[in-house]
Amino acid sequence: MDSRPKSFLSVTPGVSEPPSVTTPKVAVSRPRLSFDEYVQGIFRGDRMILAKAITLIESARPQDNELAQKIIQACLPKAGNSLRIGITGVPGAGKSTFLESLGTRLAKDGVRLAVLAVDPSSALSGGSILGDKTRMEQLSACENAFIRPSPSRGSLGGVARRTRETMILCEAAGFRVIFVETVGVGQSETLVHGMIDFFLLLMIAGAGDELQGIKRGIIEMADMMVINKAEGDNLQRAQATRQEYASARHMFPARADGWLPPVLTCSSLTGTGIMEVWETIKSFEQQAKKSGSFDANRRSQRVQWLTQTVEHDLLMEFWNDPRVQEQLATVREQVESGDLYSGYAARKLVNLFRNRP
Amino acid sequence: MDSRPKSFLSVTPGVSEPPSVTTPKVAVSRPRLSFDEYVQGIFRGDRMILAKAITLIESARPQDNELAQKIIQACLPKAGNSLRIGITGVPGAGKSTFLESLGTRLAKDGVRLAVLAVDPSSALSGGSILGDKTRMEQLSACENAFIRPSPSRGSLGGVARRTRETMILCEAAGFRVIFVETVGVGQSETLVHGMIDFFLLLMIAGAGDELQGIKRGIIEMADMMVINKAEGDNLQRAQATRQEYASARHMFPARADGWLPPVLTCSSLTGTGIMEVWETIKSFEQQAKKSGSFDANRRSQRVQWLTQTVEHDLLMEFWNDPRVQEQLATVREQVESGDLYSGYAARKLVNLFRNRP
Repeated sequence: MDSRPKSFLSVTPGVSEPPSVTTPKVAVSRPRLSFDEYVQGIFRGDRMILAKAITLIESARPQDNELAQKIIQACLPKAGNSLRIGITGVPGAGKSTFLESLGTRLAKDGVRLAVLAVDPSSALSGGSILGDKTRMEQLSACENAFIRPSPSRGSLGGVARRTRETMILCEAAGFRVIFVETVGVGQSETLVHGMIDFFLLLMIAGAGDELQGIKRGIIEMADMMVINKAEGDNLQRAQATRQEYASARHMFPARADGWLPPVLTCSSLTGTGIMEVWETIKSFEQQAKKSGSFDANRRSQRVQWLTQTVEHDLLMEFWNDPRVQEQLATVREQVESGDLYSGYAARKLVNLFRNRP
Repeated sequence: MDSRPKSFLSVTPGVSEPPSVTTPKVAVSRPRLSFDEYVQGIFRGDRMILAKAITLIESARPQDNELAQKIIQACLPKAGNSLRIGITGVPGAGKSTFLESLGTRLAKDGVRLAVLAVDPSSALSGGSILGDKTRMEQLSACENAFIRPSPSRGSLGGVARRTRETMILCEAAGFRVIFVETVGVGQSETLVHGMIDFFLLLMIAGAGDELQGIKRGIIEMADMMVINKAEGDNLQRAQATRQEYASARHMFPARADGWLPPVLTCSSLTGTGIMEVWETIKSFEQQAKKSGSFDANRRSQRVQWLTQTVEHDLLMEFWNDPRVQEQLATVREQVESGDLYSGYAARKLVNLFRNRP
């Protein structure tokens, strides 16, 4: 068992701890907990054990993943009871400051909340939003908050999957609000949109859509737009921008659930408008739960996850199959040179994988 | 053997022929040619047999596909010797008129050319660009031209694959220039970009990027931009737009192959500028062949096709597997209700597929 105090900052070990001279850099082999220790720790809300379990999910080692899967299945009966909120916006829109401001208020009100991240740049470059924990200093210090940076390895799809799994563990650990932060650059929004109940688009005043790099498709996904940094000299421009977006909403097709995405302003710096944003989210939740669209959305998301997981796993097994790997170089060369038709080559490889002549 | 004359219009039977009263609507069972008849017909450039072979590629019947694959492999040694040109632009940019204008000139010059299409709307709705053959009346009448609408069934990926295969057959049939037309709406460009040597973006004057719905990513893919409809009252605006885009080019990162995409104007109506567009394409080809980037691009495309084909085929086999299908409904229900973790469910289905306990 880990002897460090429970209040120890619940971000990834690599981020929260200074590098130790005695720890070898390659194989960071910590004493593993037992399945029961993980599950019981999560159930009683132990953030340190939760963080360790998430590290299992993110691990590249098959035995870690096997244990992680068991833990996730065990957590499933206690999962689901949360409000999952996606937050997007271009870098500079103030996502971290907004989360710090709203999160700290909620945590002080007794709400247990988690902040996760899906970061396309981390999947590509190994960098990470939320990687710099000092960006949410106040929130990090709250007992009720759990902050976890984006996994820094793997494809964007893999990052999304690990975030979903992390969400299940967080819910089983009693976190009732889960924020998933992402950067407004495209594909990552679609992935995040497929795992949350409410999607908040954070914007700044005075910048056109092009400047903010926000695509029309992202605006269509948003359940609410919030113009951040509505403070001081910027207040009037923020209000004008709010008005612009509020008018533009009517150009989008009406939603099946009847929700007209509100456009609000707020200042993460002064706190003005922050709790109004929260109240609006809560009223959406209430309305969606009453109409049944909340549950219907969750159900359809689960089915989509199944499809994505199955396809991802199958393709992983395929490309890692020793028989496929043995033949791949030769086949690829023949296809590359134009001697072998890729349809034939594909059949050959698939047959190898399926043990067929 | 088919007794109809060779000059018979080489578009899909369903499009070019009036419905016959005696032909049953469901199973259009034409006398099938032998493998040799298909291949020999293609090799001697018989457009009718080429069209029939493409119908095999597009068929939903497994035995048709098997024959099609054999034909494609047989054509491969004679394929590749063409210039593949992608053409995109929003509806109204005048793609068909442009192709009619350029294509007719080339055909009269003795160039054998094919016009294919990749149409996302056809994949979704069953509609089709090029479906209305009257749009290229003159070109359709040229002995040297072969026009084939977008396959009207299947996913966009499936449509792209069938277009690639069609391209191989066309090349084996001696068509030396292949145009692939697509609509400027997003994903289809990326797919088309992965199968051509040169990408032409057709635009119209005076409309902003937003109005034309052209995304920055598409402009970055373009090897040339052509402002169409530079005629009459529109001439000045076309020239101004040309100037605008020519200046804007410098804002994009320099290309590895050193090519600075030219911006030209033309009028498909009067023919002004049409052959200048062609000369520019030819000079790109020359330069790319000399530098080796032409061949390198083809090779890397073939490897990408292999990956896509393998993954597509494997997933198709998976979802059509009887054991998977038998369990799918139950598993999906358990996942949907939140009782079963999708990672576990995925493993169960993949194990079924792979005959593992």
